[in-house]
Amino acid sequence: MPVIGIVLIESMPMFQSFETTSTPQFGPSRVAQLRAQFDALGIDGFLVPRADEFQGEYVPASAERLSWLTGFTGSAGMALVTQSQAVVFVDGRYTTQLVQQVDAQTFTPGDLVGEPPHSWIAAHGPSGFKLGLDPWLHSGAEVKRLAAAVSARGGSLVMLDANPLDALWQDRPAEPMGQVVVQLESHAGKAASDKIAEIAEGLAQKKAAAVLIADPSSIAWIFNIRGADVPHTPHPLARAILTADGRAELFLHQGKVGADAAAHLAPLCTIHAPESLLARLAHHAADGARILVDADATSVALTKVIEDAGGVVVEATDPARLPRAVKNAVELRGSAEAHVQDGVAMVTFLAWLDAQPPGSLTEIAAVKVLEACRARIGQSLQNPLKDVSFDTISGAGEHGAIMHYRVTTESDRLLQPGELFLIDSGAQYVNGTTDITRTVAIGSVPQEQKRFFTLVLKGMIAISTARFPKGSRGCDLDPLARIALWKAGADFAHGTGHGVGSYLSVHEGPQRIARLSTQELLPGMILSNEPGYYRPGAFGIRIENLIYVTPLDMIEGGDLPMMGFETLTWCPIDRRLILTELLTVEEQDWIDRYHATVREKLSPLVTDADVLSWLEQATQPL
Amino acid sequence: MPVIGIVLIESMPMFQSFETTSTPQFGPSRVAQLRAQFDALGIDGFLVPRADEFQGEYVPASAERLSWLTGFTGSAGMALVTQSQAVVFVDGRYTTQLVQQVDAQTFTPGDLVGEPPHSWIAAHGPSGFKLGLDPWLHSGAEVKRLAAAVSARGGSLVMLDANPLDALWQDRPAEPMGQVVVQLESHAGKAASDKIAEIAEGLAQKKAAAVLIADPSSIAWIFNIRGADVPHTPHPLARAILTADGRAELFLHQGKVGADAAAHLAPLCTIHAPESLLARLAHHAADGARILVDADATSVALTKVIEDAGGVVVEATDPARLPRAVKNAVELRGSAEAHVQDGVAMVTFLAWLDAQPPGSLTEIAAVKVLEACRARIGQSLQNPLKDVSFDTISGAGEHGAIMHYRVTTESDRLLQPGELFLIDSGAQYVNGTTDITRTVAIGSVPQEQKRFFTLVLKGMIAISTARFPKGSRGCDLDPLARIALWKAGADFAHGTGHGVGSYLSVHEGPQRIARLSTQELLPGMILSNEPGYYRPGAFGIRIENLIYVTPLDMIEGGDLPMMGFETLTWCPIDRRLILTELLTVEEQDWIDRYHATVREKLSPLVTDADVLSWLEQATQPL
Repeated sequence: MPVIGIVLIESMPMFQSFETTSTPQFGPSRVAQLRAQFDALGIDGFLVPRADEFQGEYVPASAERLSWLTGFTGSAGMALVTQSQAVVFVDGRYTTQLVQQVDAQTFTPGDLVGEPPHSWIAAHGPSGFKLGLDPWLHSGAEVKRLAAAVSARGGSLVMLDANPLDALWQDRPAEPMGQVVVQLESHAGKAASDKIAEIAEGLAQKKAAAVLIADPSSIAWIFNIRGADVPHTPHPLARAILTADGRAELFLHQGKVGADAAAHLAPLCTIHAPESLLARLAHHAADGARILVDADATSVALTKVIEDAGGVVVEATDPARLPRAVKNAVELRGSAEAHVQDGVAMVTFLAWLDAQPPGSLTEIAAVKVLEACRARIGQSLQNPLKDVSFDTISGAGEHGAIMHYRVTTESDRLLQPGELFLIDSGAQYVNGTTDITRTVAIGSVPQEQKRFFTLVLKGMIAISTARFPKGSRGCDLDPLARIALWKAGADFAHGTGHGVGSYLSVHEGPQRIARLSTQELLPGMILSNEPGYYRPGAFGIRIENLIYVTPLDMIEGGDLPMMGFETLTWCPIDRRLILTELLTVEEQDWIDRYHATVREKLSPLVTDADVLSWLEQATQPL
Repeated sequence: MPVIGIVLIESMPMFQSFETTSTPQFGPSRVAQLRAQFDALGIDGFLVPRADEFQGEYVPASAERLSWLTGFTGSAGMALVTQSQAVVFVDGRYTTQLVQQVDAQTFTPGDLVGEPPHSWIAAHGPSGFKLGLDPWLHSGAEVKRLAAAVSARGGSLVMLDANPLDALWQDRPAEPMGQVVVQLESHAGKAASDKIAEIAEGLAQKKAAAVLIADPSSIAWIFNIRGADVPHTPHPLARAILTADGRAELFLHQGKVGADAAAHLAPLCTIHAPESLLARLAHHAADGARILVDADATSVALTKVIEDAGGVVVEATDPARLPRAVKNAVELRGSAEAHVQDGVAMVTFLAWLDAQPPGSLTEIAAVKVLEACRARIGQSLQNPLKDVSFDTISGAGEHGAIMHYRVTTESDRLLQPGELFLIDSGAQYVNGTTDITRTVAIGSVPQEQKRFFTLVLKGMIAISTARFPKGSRGCDLDPLARIALWKAGADFAHGTGHGVGSYLSVHEGPQRIARLSTQELLPGMILSNEPGYYRPGAFGIRIENLIYVTPLDMIEGGDLPMMGFETLTWCPIDRRLILTELLTVEEQDWIDRYHATVREKLSPLVTDADVLSWLEQATQPL
């Protein structure tokens, strides 16, 4: 399949890297420097989360304080530095990496899940512990837990005016200054002015003067803008205050706002420097005004200023959260189009992959080619790949069993004959965010792995074909994805699906298909449908499509209006791995109809004859 | 089938009746008499729940204050009497009955579900409302809701020393004086002394001085005794205080305790008159002692005395609740035996039913014959029917669609040809409590009803054959019972299953299979499995077996220990109503295996040749 040459991909800029640039050698001195400040600050410990001031999933380089201090570069973790100890808390996926990346004399490992910092403090914290916090980096929910923990040691929290690491961090990267672009109404489907007016109406009903919008994805959605401050999620790091009289103040660096964005925003809001947020918040909070805050997802620095100014913090869910999750018809159409384009990129990649001799390709090479396929199809369809929606999970053999595996130059390995290869990836296009996992056979795969592939597929079909009454919640559907595995004495240790944004975060709430998700599923919500099976040290399987909730026509003979899902993702599921005899007739029909639709939707956009013939073959009936 | 003659059943005492003795004519004067006391009591309203001092499902005649005041005899409801209004709150199943049973000039109907008393008070209560309560009849949870409601009207609750109705009620029945009997260890499977010791250990761990056991079923379980104070649930109305040093005080009328019970109880506890409970509770609570109370299920009169005595009320789940739900091997074996016996009674009844000409039989006659079958089989197997476990639901045609239908002499109707007949019943035997629903064809039934019968059956089989990992909760399994109905555009508006006691209440917590049940399912828990379908005004279907949770052997090829259910109930499911073409091969196999086991278990105990030949025929493979 010469069309996707390595030559091509080497020359393209990548949205993801495979290097880990850890600097463990600086840990000892940096910890010593931090401790040297404790007395002056009146603390005997300090907490360094892997978080920024926006409590987001991705953080800018300027907020990578945990990595700067310790050397640990994982995507989740927290360091607790006391006078005598420095503990880095990570979860199970990072325990090995932690040992490799931090100085063992300086740091001891902690268990972020089994004994998170607040539990550790309650059990082992020094007596009378005065724990310093940067109030911008911790939400209300976290602070509550930490306050209880230090109180159990007879201590207290100390909210610091500035982060003591920032003064020590010589070459700290500048804050990101990604340009804000307008998200056209032809993609957003609703005018920003209407969204602002509806939020104002909700404020009036709640007798609140204003709401603080602290989630950058909500800012992006409300104002119909996108940004480029953090990797993979196209929202601008910004906040806003919306008032009951329908006005809006947007706190955003002027440097991010070009002429087009300024013209778009001018009738919607006044733009303020981020530094003026505290003063404006205090202004609105004066005289006991009621200010709505999603406190558990907002820096305590912000809730505190409302209280200090005499305002009343009214805890409420971010008013953009649910409307943002419930996509309108324009967003759904855009997502459907983005998914067809993404499907063309995927089949181009999978056709190329199948054409390589088994054992000739590495995990990283696969990631690079897939990204190149997305970029190239984006160019040819004139809807460019804006970013990947997350770092691709590209795991061969036993790496497939690591649920959040990120391939690095150290971990990279060949895709060997006889193995499963799991590739979970996604893209950001201006009309939609995608997220797809396919598990494919490299050469001839053992029967047992095919059996589990088929059981996972049964779960994925059960969700795809589910019908459920209005009022059903994600937790009501989650078991459907597991029944076939349960019958075989197996399960998978993650949720079945997460919400997905509309050219926004690939992980979006409140909708989920998961054991603990009591959010009602509403028409228009986009979710992933991704059951899996993982045999540690051996192999991993995941099959993932995106779907959205839709009301159904009345079912003949029934008496209750039902809902179901429409599928967004179109890409063949590896037929070589399906044991047809384990499927019911209805399941086989679903697969055949799915593949027929894949062929029908993608073929017209596939220009390469080899890819087209691969697609024809991959979508044959079972 | 002459063996079960009507002659026989007419001569037998029944554990249930079909009369409703309502006295609406007294309502106006009784309400007037109640209101006349308001000034002296310092209240301007009084609440009359259908509840006794034990917060139980069944109440003794002496506690039927709601019926005495209003005429309404339903099993749930509450009257609110103010100076100007008297509202009787009932749920949907009793709206018609309410109109028939109460004086329309005096009482207005309220909606117990849509606008329960606390919501009604918050919306319509008089300004400054002083609401009187009998603190023995309301739990902590209720009082919290009511306190918030009256507070919203600027009023307050007034806890009365005595119930003002009791002084007015001339011919109030005496409190029940059911004899306490010993539940032998050969049925209970565990010595009462061990249970008391384990509870004491738990108290020590919680640094509590004592626990108040307020639930009569817990009393019965802890002390290995049973009682006869209320219909259908064989527990004694009694309470106990257990202390951390392993001692127990049982508050129980001496009149209920014969020589055998006294000898059994003597080494376990001291027996006190019920009247001395408040003083003893105050004694234990002195000096700030910590007393465990399941406050939301306990009369506030009791929690209040602890607080007044200076004790600390530590809210905790009744320590007997979970151990009582998790049956031991002896209890499970007893239940299995009781269910085989009950199955013999059921097939005797069903054989007789099938032998009657369609249209010749009424709903009440069916109930009577079924109870007679249970009594007769109990006699012949020397394990007597102690009671029915609840009033039999016997609904033909459209009555089957009324989920909690109780047939009365007014509602009774013939089982007509072409109809479904739903019969939901249960028994109390000394070795176990049963609960079974069968829906059977009377003559030739329309295809559509057979289709829904088969869909309900698929749900029932899905639960019966479920395998699920440790940690699964009732809510994780509930959808399995519904998937087939959901696919057909239908559902049922009740939970799939409730917990069942061991010769105790047929409704037992905390285990349930229901949308909102987050209780983990533990080996030994007995549950009902009873999906249904209801077409209002037309027909109703329910199929119910009891099952219990059991760990499974490792499943070949799997890697996770799983749990599943064993079936307790053995009785044919009407094969004439099953559309075999709607079942999978596995579902057909399950039915055939189930029926083979029914035949194998029941045949040896069936002495009547006609019943035996009916059983042979009813358990043929599909």
